[in-house]
Amino acid sequence: MKICLIGTGLIGGSIVLKLRDKGLVSYVAGVDKNNKNLQDALSIGIIDDACTLSEALDKTDLVILAIPVDAALALLPSLMNQITHHVVMDVGSTKAAICRAADNHPFRKRFVATHPMWGTEFNGPKAARSDSFTGKAAVICDKDGSDPDALDAVENLYRNLDMHIVYMQPEAHDLHTAYVSHVSHITSFALANTVLEKEKEDDKIFELASAGFESTVRLAKSNPEMWVPIFRQNKENVLDVLNEHISQLRKFKACLEKDNYEYLEELITQANRINQILK
Amino acid sequence: MKICLIGTGLIGGSIVLKLRDKGLVSYVAGVDKNNKNLQDALSIGIIDDACTLSEALDKTDLVILAIPVDAALALLPSLMNQITHHVVMDVGSTKAAICRAADNHPFRKRFVATHPMWGTEFNGPKAARSDSFTGKAAVICDKDGSDPDALDAVENLYRNLDMHIVYMQPEAHDLHTAYVSHVSHITSFALANTVLEKEKEDDKIFELASAGFESTVRLAKSNPEMWVPIFRQNKENVLDVLNEHISQLRKFKACLEKDNYEYLEELITQANRINQILK
Repeated sequence: MKICLIGTGLIGGSIVLKLRDKGLVSYVAGVDKNNKNLQDALSIGIIDDACTLSEALDKTDLVILAIPVDAALALLPSLMNQITHHVVMDVGSTKAAICRAADNHPFRKRFVATHPMWGTEFNGPKAARSDSFTGKAAVICDKDGSDPDALDAVENLYRNLDMHIVYMQPEAHDLHTAYVSHVSHITSFALANTVLEKEKEDDKIFELASAGFESTVRLAKSNPEMWVPIFRQNKENVLDVLNEHISQLRKFKACLEKDNYEYLEELITQANRINQILK
Repeated sequence: MKICLIGTGLIGGSIVLKLRDKGLVSYVAGVDKNNKNLQDALSIGIIDDACTLSEALDKTDLVILAIPVDAALALLPSLMNQITHHVVMDVGSTKAAICRAADNHPFRKRFVATHPMWGTEFNGPKAARSDSFTGKAAVICDKDGSDPDALDAVENLYRNLDMHIVYMQPEAHDLHTAYVSHVSHITSFALANTVLEKEKEDDKIFELASAGFESTVRLAKSNPEMWVPIFRQNKENVLDVLNEHISQLRKFKACLEKDNYEYLEELITQANRINQILK
């Protein structure tokens, strides 16, 4: 496999490392406007060369678009104009906007819209890990919009990452990820800011931070360059879920204000059902 | 050390396991109204005997009160009436109410109010682990209210758990834990309920649940028996912090509603400061 990796960060880097571990990659051309990432990806051995996009396309077959979703959306039309025999896949956390953009392009069928459901709060090639994706879901959207050989190539890639494939319409994907990923990040950012505000007057507050706190604010380390564009593109869904989440929080608040501990117990018992779903 | 362990669950069990690993315990009498926990604690080897409280006191020196905070508060006066030479320590997540209760007792000085800052979303003796507390903070409140020998015994116990000791007034403790523990649990319960509500109409939603989601809802598995009394005893602080947290969430909401992505980026960049505090 000869890969043009656009974006040499956490996700793209982790994909390439796993494929390299399996001996499936003969060459990777790295394209990145972030020169530090490019140099790190070279030194780690994620990429073989740092290239311009046109150089990289000349030497490769599979294009992995692994940059923030706003940059991916902006680049897609000109990228699609330059491809010949290539298969292009993206890995972004929003799917409706990029699928709409691809639909307008004459080479639409060379594009496969995907989202491997894994990430961490870290970024950059140094955070990449080859075992990251094992056992996780890889979403493929609008599969009928892609050529069979393009779809095959991408499905094989995800199977080689030891992921299981889930097919979904882009709108359903964006709704679901608002629930199980995007709003988790907002609650984590907001919780971090709640405590950091308090820290200004009370610098001992983190002395007591426990494992539970660390687990809920872990995602607050995630970088704005990646997340602002995700929230922006998925604004309507994120707002809907955020409103529901605030309503749920208000129920807890009302229980305390009204000393209604029976209902508080009921709310917690309901939440415990997550136990049966996430082992 | 001869221990009377009142409450043979996660916290009490983990303390005893570690002290046993270090060869510091010669006998543990278990007292628990939950017969299943008592039997499990016996079979795991956390306790040597299942006893009534008065039997247990006859054979031991150190009493560890490791039951939900409402039950601990209710039991404390009659427990203190029955002690002779004993040292009594509690391990509850709220400290103001139990310190006030202890202050009214003639044997106040035999009591040491503590909170080891560790826990998981699981409960019961089978969840106990001897390495749980290493490197974490153990809070001791109102230390001047305790006899020097009682304080010494408890400090030594926590040092043997490889914890560092933090002294704090009970009111400060309850405020801090509202920030770094109690409200994390509420956000986690509320997030779980947000997604579980949606699941009623859309059973595919958990197919995409990622590591980020699991990390933020992990605490939602925590049991109501332990947490309702904590929220109840720490109601005023929890409400204050919950209100602040909802205000922080509203800022994210307003950014999206008004398409103010510069401010959204600023909020996320602020939250990223957590990175410097929690490694």
